[in-house]
Amino acid sequence: MLKLFYAAHTCALASHIALEEAGADYETVRLDFRTDDQRKPEYLAINPKGRVPALVTDRGVLTETPAILVFIAQSFPAAKLAPLDDPFAFAQVQAFNSYLCSTVHVAHAHGPRGTRWADDPAALEELKRKVPQTVGECFALIEREMFQGPWVMGDAYSICDPYLFTLASWMKGDGVDPARFPAIQDHSRRMAERPAVKRALAEEQRPTAS
Amino acid sequence: MLKLFYAAHTCALASHIALEEAGADYETVRLDFRTDDQRKPEYLAINPKGRVPALVTDRGVLTETPAILVFIAQSFPAAKLAPLDDPFAFAQVQAFNSYLCSTVHVAHAHGPRGTRWADDPAALEELKRKVPQTVGECFALIEREMFQGPWVMGDAYSICDPYLFTLASWMKGDGVDPARFPAIQDHSRRMAERPAVKRALAEEQRPTAS
Repeated sequence: MLKLFYAAHTCALASHIALEEAGADYETVRLDFRTDDQRKPEYLAINPKGRVPALVTDRGVLTETPAILVFIAQSFPAAKLAPLDDPFAFAQVQAFNSYLCSTVHVAHAHGPRGTRWADDPAALEELKRKVPQTVGECFALIEREMFQGPWVMGDAYSICDPYLFTLASWMKGDGVDPARFPAIQDHSRRMAERPAVKRALAEEQRPTAS
Repeated sequence: MLKLFYAAHTCALASHIALEEAGADYETVRLDFRTDDQRKPEYLAINPKGRVPALVTDRGVLTETPAILVFIAQSFPAAKLAPLDDPFAFAQVQAFNSYLCSTVHVAHAHGPRGTRWADDPAALEELKRKVPQTVGECFALIEREMFQGPWVMGDAYSICDPYLFTLASWMKGDGVDPARFPAIQDHSRRMAERPAVKRALAEEQRPTAS
């Protein structure tokens, strides 16, 4: 059975939602970043990067959100989560998700995770200071140039939608007013009403059993 | 016909090599970053992100290296540049390329392109200072955990190889000694001998006609 390693409030939510949308048989393992679970030897044996998500399959471990999302779409084709038979349309999906992982997520990360790229406290403050600008520019570009509506790729819901929903949910915390981007804001509202999204969020917000 | 917009010494080289490996019929347009060609209105009309690569197809423009590489692999299946019929193996290819775009390229970019994330000159210096460490950690992880050999994914050459070759070629400029990573260094040497790589590099190093 598939097993998703995630932590709350991370980009792993995109893969979690996609598994729900796909109707996949899977289980989850929650890591707690407050206790640095992702850097413990038992998790590094699963994902040496010390990041989430990681998806354990019967053939091995997969990492990186864009890769996991396509794997889910290909493994559950009946869910029609990506245009698998159209190389150009598929490349548009991939380009969108690649922009999210390499530019939007990275812009956000300079707030909470600036120590990836700097040690000096003054530099870390400077990185935080610029986050509202860079994150705002990313979502402005998405709203203006990429988002087709009603879903990211137009009429067809795809693996772009849970990923956008996840990263857009960080906007307020990054000091960016979501009201600046009406199409994305409306998308987030409609996403939040989907049963798959509700189930994934309920699981991630469930109190830890222990 | 496909048209690749690139600039010398950028990640667009990966797509350029892949087009050569695929035997594609294509033309190239070289942008000059020294004169900010990528921010001129005529290019922003093609790629509003103001980045390279951009691949113009008969159905529209594609951006983002991981997306373009898969598009090339799917459009020229005879070249066998990706395991297109095996979702798990394909996800491994995607995970590798996603790591290159979202982590390795980003680590590198904090040297020459720190102004994406900071304005203060002291902070920009701090970002540059840490580049040898972060880039070195990325390639150490690739060498230790990801690179299978003789090609990235093992016996089969794939779209991971030109992308790794491209980013590894920046290592010295980032203050990282390639000799620390014998497998990657050997990979770079063998890549440089491939006719497709030689053709792409010769084109990128050709003096501008004008």
